[in-house]
Amino acid sequence: MIVTFLTDFGLEDDFVGTCHGVMKRIAAETQIIDITHGIRPGRILQGALALANALPYMPAGVHLAIVDPGVGSSRRPLALRDGEGRLYVGPDNGLLLPAAERFGGVVEAYELANPAYALDSVSRTFHGRDLFSPAAAHLSLGVAPGELGPPVDPDALVRLEVPQPEIGSSRIRATVLAVDRFGNIALNLTRNHLDEASIVPGMRVELGARGNKYYAVAARTFADATPGELILYEDSYRNVAIAVTRGSAASLLGVEEGSDVVVAVDAF
Amino acid sequence: MIVTFLTDFGLEDDFVGTCHGVMKRIAAETQIIDITHGIRPGRILQGALALANALPYMPAGVHLAIVDPGVGSSRRPLALRDGEGRLYVGPDNGLLLPAAERFGGVVEAYELANPAYALDSVSRTFHGRDLFSPAAAHLSLGVAPGELGPPVDPDALVRLEVPQPEIGSSRIRATVLAVDRFGNIALNLTRNHLDEASIVPGMRVELGARGNKYYAVAARTFADATPGELILYEDSYRNVAIAVTRGSAASLLGVEEGSDVVVAVDAF
Amino acid sequence: MIVTFLTDFGLEDDFVGTCHGVMKRIAAETQIIDITHGIRPGRILQGALALANALPYMPAGVHLAIVDPGVGSSRRPLALRDGEGRLYVGPDNGLLLPAAERFGGVVEAYELANPAYALDSVSRTFHGRDLFSPAAAHLSLGVAPGELGPPVDPDALVRLEVPQPEIGSSRIRATVLAVDRFGNIALNLTRNHLDEASIVPGMRVELGARGNKYYAVAARTFADATPGELILYEDSYRNVAIAVTRGSAASLLGVEEGSDVVVAVDAF
Repeated sequence: MIVTFLTDFGLEDDFVGTCHGVMKRIAAETQIIDITHGIRPGRILQGALALANALPYMPAGVHLAIVDPGVGSSRRPLALRDGEGRLYVGPDNGLLLPAAERFGGVVEAYELANPAYALDSVSRTFHGRDLFSPAAAHLSLGVAPGELGPPVDPDALVRLEVPQPEIGSSRIRATVLAVDRFGNIALNLTRNHLDEASIVPGMRVELGARGNKYYAVAARTFADATPGELILYEDSYRNVAIAVTRGSAASLLGVEEGSDVVVAVDAF
Repeated sequence: MIVTFLTDFGLEDDFVGTCHGVMKRIAAETQIIDITHGIRPGRILQGALALANALPYMPAGVHLAIVDPGVGSSRRPLALRDGEGRLYVGPDNGLLLPAAERFGGVVEAYELANPAYALDSVSRTFHGRDLFSPAAAHLSLGVAPGELGPPVDPDALVRLEVPQPEIGSSRIRATVLAVDRFGNIALNLTRNHLDEASIVPGMRVELGARGNKYYAVAARTFADATPGELILYEDSYRNVAIAVTRGSAASLLGVEEGSDVVVAVDAF
Repeated sequence: MIVTFLTDFGLEDDFVGTCHGVMKRIAAETQIIDITHGIRPGRILQGALALANALPYMPAGVHLAIVDPGVGSSRRPLALRDGEGRLYVGPDNGLLLPAAERFGGVVEAYELANPAYALDSVSRTFHGRDLFSPAAAHLSLGVAPGELGPPVDPDALVRLEVPQPEIGSSRIRATVLAVDRFGNIALNLTRNHLDEASIVPGMRVELGARGNKYYAVAARTFADATPGELILYEDSYRNVAIAVTRGSAASLLGVEEGSDVVVAVDAF
C-alpha cells in the first residue's frame, strides 16, 4: 500500500529524508508520495486544508501527516480509518480530520501505544521519525490499525475551528486560508457564497485589505484579465481566490494566511 | 516507461505532490524523476534551457514539463515525439522545443483533446494536475501519443526567442541565461564565441555589468583561481559562465537572469 | 541495494534531478532516498554531521554525499567501505568519515579512477553528475568498490576538525553545530557535558550569545516550557540544543552555525 506524506518539516534539514529512511527499513517496497513538506512551521489549519485538498488526487493508502507543535506534550498520537478505508497517521490536533471527512469521516481511531510498531527508543521531540513513520510503514504492510494501540472514541478527537465568512447582501468578510508560491490568495469562500452576495462572473468588485481598496474582476481564469489586473475566481480546489496576472496578489494586497479580506460589489 | 518532471511549481505547496498522486493513480508502477520544480514562476526560457540541459542525462521516457503562465487561455496543451522516440507533454509555449531539438527535433505533435486521458473535471487554472499529468501517465503505460488528440503541424508550434550574443573582436555583449544556487552565472556563450573574440584560457578579462567593471581570469575550473577571484569558465553544460571561488558571482555583479554582461579582453 | 543521497545542491536547480537521472540510467531499479539537499553551500562539517546523524535511520546501502567546494582541484574522489559493510561515495574532504565512524570506521578506501564507472566525459565542475553518481549507481548493482580504482590508506583520508566545547564547573563554552528550520540550535554538547558542569533538568541557566544574556530552563521537551520561554534540552539526535516554544531560538539569540554560546548555571 502506498504512503502519502505531508509535513511542516521543510527540505533544508534531514527530517523528511530520515522519515523516508525509517519507513524504507520497515517496508522496503512501499512507495512514498511526498504531498508537500512546505506547510509553515506549526500551522495546523494550513496543513489540514492542504491534506484535505490533495487527498482526492492520491491513491488510497496510508496518509501520514505531521504538523505537530505539541510534540512531547500529552496530545495523542493517532491511527485512523475513514469510511472508505483510507488510513491516517498523525497527531491528535485536528490535522487529519478535514481530509477524513471527505471520505466518510473517521470510523475507527486508535492511540499509537504499542512499542512493537515504534522505534526502539522514542525521543521526546521527533515523533515523526520514532513513532509516526514506523506506524505508517507497518500499516502499509497490512498491519491492522487496531494492533497499534487502544481504540479512541472518534467523537473525542480534537477538531480545528475553520474560520467562517460573514456573508451580507453584496458584501462578504472573508479570511485568507492560504497563499501559494504564485502569490494567489485562497479565501474561505466557495462560489455559493459569491452567489449569496450577488457577485457573479464579469462583475467588477471591490476588495478591502489592510485598510486599502482595490478593484478586481470576477473572472473564470487568469487569461480573462489583462496583465496587472486583479481577478476573483474559483481556484482548482473550488475555493474562491484572488490572483493578479503575472504578479503576486498577496504581495500587492499585503495579506497572508489568516488576514481579513472584504469582497464587495463595486458601488459605481 | 519512466516520467521525468520539471515545473515552476516550487515545493512549498502541494502542486508537485498532487501531480505525483494523479500519475500514480493511473500508473502505479511508473517511476517519476523530479528534474527540478525550482524554475522561477512563469520563466519559460529558463525552464526550456534547464530541460534541454538535463535531458541528455535522463533515461528516455515521457518528459513532462510545465511552466505555463498562459494556463486557461487558448494556448494548446501538447504531446510530442522527437526523432529518437522520446515523448514530451506540456504547453505549446516553446518550453519543450529546445530539449526535443537535441534529439532530432519534433517529428510528431498532438493537441491533448481526448477526455479519456484527462481527469473527469478539468479546471481552468491547474492543467498540470488535470490534463498534463494524466496524459504523461497514460503515455508511460504505452498509450500512443496519437490517441491523445488531433495532430498538429510541428512547424506551427510556438518557438522561444533565445537571446543571441553580439561578438566583436576582443569584446562580447552577452546575456545571463541562469543563475544557480551557488551564484554561478551562465551566459548565452560557448567556448567558440570566446575563441571568435580571441579570449583564451589564462587571459585576464574585463567584465562589465550594471555600469561597473570587474576583472576575471579565463580559467578551467574553480580550483584555478584564488579565493575571491572571479573566473570565466566553461560550465558543466558547456555554457560559458562566471563564478567566484567561495562566493556568489551573481551577488557580486548584481545580475540576474536576463541581465547584460560585457566580456572584453583586458586593455592593460 | 538502496542509494541514499545528501548534498548542498539545493532543489532550485536541476543538479539533484540530473544526478537521479544519471543513476537511473545505470541502475533503473535502484531506489534513491534523498536525505537532504539543503546543506548550506560548501559547509562540509554541516553535511558530515547531518549524514552521521541520519545514517543510523537509513537502510544499509550506498551512501552518496556531495559537499565539495574543492571540485576540480586535486582532492580525491572516493569510495569507502565501513566496518559493517555500508558503502560511501563522495569527495575526500572529511564529509564521509563521521558517518563511517558510527559503523566501525573506514576499513577499505578507493580512489575513483576507473573510467568504466564514470560518464564518458567528466566535467571539471560537476563531479556529482559525472563521477560520483555513476560510481554510486554501479556499486548499488553489486560492483565491488575495489573495481572503481586503486586503494587508498584509510589513515591518509582527510579528516574534519569538529569544534570541541570548553567545560568548566558550572560554565560551558559551546559552538553552534546547526540551526534547523524551526530555529532550534544544536550545540556541540551531549548530556554528559551538562552533567560535568552540574547542569541538570529543571535548573534555570544563563545563555550568553553575541554579548547578550538570556535565561533558559533545562527541560525535557518543548511542552515543558511556557510559550516564549527558552529551553535547553537533549534533541532527538542526542545533542544538547536550545529552543523556544512557538518561535525561533536562532532568531532570538541571533546565532548561526559556528557561533559561540556560553551556558552557565544561573547565579541567582
